[in-house]
Amino acid sequence: MTEYDDAIRLETGDDPARRTGTFSEDWMIGNAVNGGFVMATGLSALGQHLATDPAEQTPHSDPVVMSAYFMTAAAPGPFTVTTDIMRCGRMLSTGQISLSQVGPGGAPVERMRAIASFGNLEHVDTLKQSTPPDLPPPEQCVSAEQAPPEFLANMRFLERLDLRLDPATAGWALGKPSMQGAIRGWLRVKDREPDTTLLMMALDALPPVAFDLGILGWTPTLEFTGHIRRRPAPGWLRVSLSSENVGGGMMEEDASIWDSTGALVAQSRQLCGVRLASGRNG
Amino acid sequence: MTEYDDAIRLETGDDPARRTGTFSEDWMIGNAVNGGFVMATGLSALGQHLATDPAEQTPHSDPVVMSAYFMTAAAPGPFTVTTDIMRCGRMLSTGQISLSQVGPGGAPVERMRAIASFGNLEHVDTLKQSTPPDLPPPEQCVSAEQAPPEFLANMRFLERLDLRLDPATAGWALGKPSMQGAIRGWLRVKDREPDTTLLMMALDALPPVAFDLGILGWTPTLEFTGHIRRRPAPGWLRVSLSSENVGGGMMEEDASIWDSTGALVAQSRQLCGVRLASGRNG
Repeated sequence: MTEYDDAIRLETGDDPARRTGTFSEDWMIGNAVNGGFVMATGLSALGQHLATDPAEQTPHSDPVVMSAYFMTAAAPGPFTVTTDIMRCGRMLSTGQISLSQVGPGGAPVERMRAIASFGNLEHVDTLKQSTPPDLPPPEQCVSAEQAPPEFLANMRFLERLDLRLDPATAGWALGKPSMQGAIRGWLRVKDREPDTTLLMMALDALPPVAFDLGILGWTPTLEFTGHIRRRPAPGWLRVSLSSENVGGGMMEEDASIWDSTGALVAQSRQLCGVRLASGRNG
Repeated sequence: MTEYDDAIRLETGDDPARRTGTFSEDWMIGNAVNGGFVMATGLSALGQHLATDPAEQTPHSDPVVMSAYFMTAAAPGPFTVTTDIMRCGRMLSTGQISLSQVGPGGAPVERMRAIASFGNLEHVDTLKQSTPPDLPPPEQCVSAEQAPPEFLANMRFLERLDLRLDPATAGWALGKPSMQGAIRGWLRVKDREPDTTLLMMALDALPPVAFDLGILGWTPTLEFTGHIRRRPAPGWLRVSLSSENVGGGMMEEDASIWDSTGALVAQSRQLCGVRLASGRNG
């Protein structure tokens, strides 16, 4: 079992709507478990619930769309996911996800609530798609391994990935952001080929696009919506981030992912808070 | 009271989490109540619930983000909205919305489930924003009133709006779509200046961008997420739609809105089903 598959593993008992697991410190970024990994975990719970639901007549094994709202930062340790199936349709099955952890006072504290739909992306025709970005080959890109060790100490999530940034959009790491609001690069999860659930994590795996605008403080995700459009081919993913609008203490971050064949496989938009001090969503 | 304010009016009783209202045929598009109007109605219910909640210490009167999942098409007639406040924070307050109508068998049928956050957009600084599109003046654009009467008969929602499309992106109405995947135009709601709740409806008020790709069948909204970034100035809104990726029976529709001062006030991305026959989400 790969590190990712082991980390995302869920236990289930008598209640088909309830699953439990444990977040590892290995998937932390800064002081919290990576939000993309939290989303993939919640999505996995809904997928497992759907797979066992008698109303689910068409197998819908691929996440197609997820909207997640983050209320408090997830910490290493045990968590519970409850899921609620809203509708099983011909094309999509839709449900709700709530992921919580026991807070300091012993009461459950909700980390993330989400709605998501599953479908079947086995055979996908393409009528029109955006062009993947031109990137230098991975070996000519900037690897996270080249970052200072004191930076990486706080970013254990990055050790799970092989991430190679286009040098044209990595100037912020040397104090020279391009100010274009763009970060692009190659991405793989170590020892694991991508699938549609992993893509939801990959949409939120790069450094925040805010860095390329000279905004180096924390930009917590307030809301994240990802669309998975196709099962990815094995190999490197190309990820492109951009942001057009920054103001009022908020910014959007748009992400697109193409697989190794050049097919657009996923896209997302998230609303982030923009601030310099730490603390999450008020 | 304007037509819009009358239509979106909600009644409330002893239960602070439950509101009722009636959808009018005036807000229908095709065989359903306009999805944007359904969203604005649900959002309005959550805003009213938050305004009366004792945990809400900072007034958060502006919707900031909403993710809506449409399960069945809303019909004219009575509806119920239930809301659940998830978290009242310093910057944002977040809750869930479920809008339902009584189905043919007498049981409630959920039309839309959504999560949304409210904040305060009274004073918004702008660090970076996308440029509004260049449009010919409204009087040189194509008005919905120029459409054939038999087309308008099924589109009563359009009578509530003053919509003027850029002739460069209105060729589809004459059977000549540009195939660029773009529709742009001016928008006002008749007799009503825009506010942040109305913007959520305005994000989904133009004809589907699919028309400009020669896709004239129904493109039901499966999921819609809108970000409201600033309170709009009075006057015309400029709305721009685009789509880059069509395949696997789905497409995304991105929308941006600028107010009469040229400020970016809202943006959205929705995932639509692409099909030729009618019927909603399986």
